Amino acid sequence: MKIDASLAAVDQLLKRTIESESIVNDLYRHVFQVSGKKLRAKLCLISSLNESNYEKFDNNYEEIRVQLAAIIELLHSATLVHDDVIDLASQRRGQETVSEAWSNSHAVLIGDYIYSRAFVLMAQIGVPEIIDELADATNKIAQGELIQLQNKKNWSIDKKILEKINYYKTGRLFEAASKTGSIIGKRSKKDANILTTVSKNLGIAFQIQDDLLDYGLSNIDIGKPKLQDIKEQKITFPLMFALEESSNQTKKDIKNLLDNKEVVAEKIYDFVLSTSAIKKCNQLLDNNFKMTQELIRNISDNYISLEMLNLLDEMWKRDY
Amino acid sequence: MKIDASLAAVDQLLKRTIESESIVNDLYRHVFQVSGKKLRAKLCLISSLNESNYEKFDNNYEEIRVQLAAIIELLHSATLVHDDVIDLASQRRGQETVSEAWSNSHAVLIGDYIYSRAFVLMAQIGVPEIIDELADATNKIAQGELIQLQNKKNWSIDKKILEKINYYKTGRLFEAASKTGSIIGKRSKKDANILTTVSKNLGIAFQIQDDLLDYGLSNIDIGKPKLQDIKEQKITFPLMFALEESSNQTKKDIKNLLDNKEVVAEKIYDFVLSTSAIKKCNQLLDNNFKMTQELIRNISDNYISLEMLNLLDEMWKRDY
Repeated sequence: MKIDASLAAVDQLLKRTIESESIVNDLYRHVFQVSGKKLRAKLCLISSLNESNYEKFDNNYEEIRVQLAAIIELLHSATLVHDDVIDLASQRRGQETVSEAWSNSHAVLIGDYIYSRAFVLMAQIGVPEIIDELADATNKIAQGELIQLQNKKNWSIDKKILEKINYYKTGRLFEAASKTGSIIGKRSKKDANILTTVSKNLGIAFQIQDDLLDYGLSNIDIGKPKLQDIKEQKITFPLMFALEESSNQTKKDIKNLLDNKEVVAEKIYDFVLSTSAIKKCNQLLDNNFKMTQELIRNISDNYISLEMLNLLDEMWKRDY
Repeated sequence: MKIDASLAAVDQLLKRTIESESIVNDLYRHVFQVSGKKLRAKLCLISSLNESNYEKFDNNYEEIRVQLAAIIELLHSATLVHDDVIDLASQRRGQETVSEAWSNSHAVLIGDYIYSRAFVLMAQIGVPEIIDELADATNKIAQGELIQLQNKKNWSIDKKILEKINYYKTGRLFEAASKTGSIIGKRSKKDANILTTVSKNLGIAFQIQDDLLDYGLSNIDIGKPKLQDIKEQKITFPLMFALEESSNQTKKDIKNLLDNKEVVAEKIYDFVLSTSAIKKCNQLLDNNFKMTQELIRNISDNYISLEMLNLLDEMWKRDY
């Protein structure tokens, strides 16, 4: 409940426009019109909630918690807006992307605006360690996207590279959400470390879930077209696993399909489903979640441990 | 001399690649391969040089000065890389842009990488006031570009809006260079204020010079194609002044030319040159420089005052 109330405050803060420029406000409002799941904000809010130390905090403790969680959502949203330029995406969260409704230029600029607004809010909190962590996370997201771009059509991609892409693109900001949250919550070193590792794991799992969702192996409406990764010639875990167990001839055939400008996404989809790739992805997820569950049980703050278990359950239940 | 030595150190810092990812290094090196004029870094270095207070500083004072100046160039370079996406530019500083040599996606991402690297370095310096100032400047640059985008083909654009665009796009970061430099230099409030205003003025003048250079009214090779602003349907000071003194019929004709997808840039060029617009731009510049010169003379630190006068002279000499 406490977390939910703070999460609502994060949403309010995110939706608040502050500029006198109508074009800036229009674009900004469009980006935050549809509320996302806010997993990163939630992880940050859980990590920063430390009632046993409540008296140690300033009066504006709750305000700072909410602000930090909002900052993390701002960074995430800025990367999404730029991703839509990179992926030439027309739909996001069930609505038109900025690049579609306005233009690529607008998307690049409102992304930059949102990034820098996040750093303005960070400067207000004024803890260099937090700024360092979040700047590094933002930096890793860009690197992760570049590595992914570099490995388009790389049908012999190494699992290690895919793991790195997943960590940089998604795990790193999840991790930073808990690390910076723990700083604000003045959490014990032990709990801070566990929370940070747990969030990193969940981020990596979340990205694999996303890769699976792209294959449409779910009834969930993810608010964007499916098989986008294949169409963009991106190799994610499902295809990597499928290729791994294939003959050289099949590998060549798939490579040819990926090389083809008019990729027949459905053919690759059928190929992936004909293998044990999806099963392997789900095993990977199950292992990740089980390991994470064990870690969460070691958190000394019982309330936080419970909140994290709930969040883990929510993520685990996503149905493929 | 002192400033030049520090400027060389800035250049070295900028050219140093730190990532293990080859794609990140390749892109990064491409961006910093050709050294720009580094006016912003220079303003920052002048503002932070305070020998009379030398003993007050830590051992790493020179290191921090150079780092701050490099941060400002990083921010500037990130905006240039993103600008090239927005303007669909193929040339910058006499070489291919990232968007041309790789792709728009690469340009968006290496821009994000450079931005966030700047913030990582800011966190190392660890002064929230500096982070706040530079985050706000970055934010204003994005806003300035958006306002400009919004006013494409706005043939009745108000001078006030153009002034705002120039300040946000260029003046703001010049201003921030001196403001943050003055913080590192522990400068007197009076000198800090003068330096900050002077740099803001110079930034605005620099943008007007750039607008004029786009009209090719110079022998300087600016390393990019000319008449780009018109081709992108951007109205800058020369065209604004030309329209201001024109009949309604001429205004309509020019509007039709701008509306036309195949803009005949040369026709607009001829129109601008047939008016007193260029003279008015030069008057604007002269007034700016004279006012700035007066301000510089009020700086109490003689060495700094001299350095600023030299820089002003350099800018003033640019030949149109």
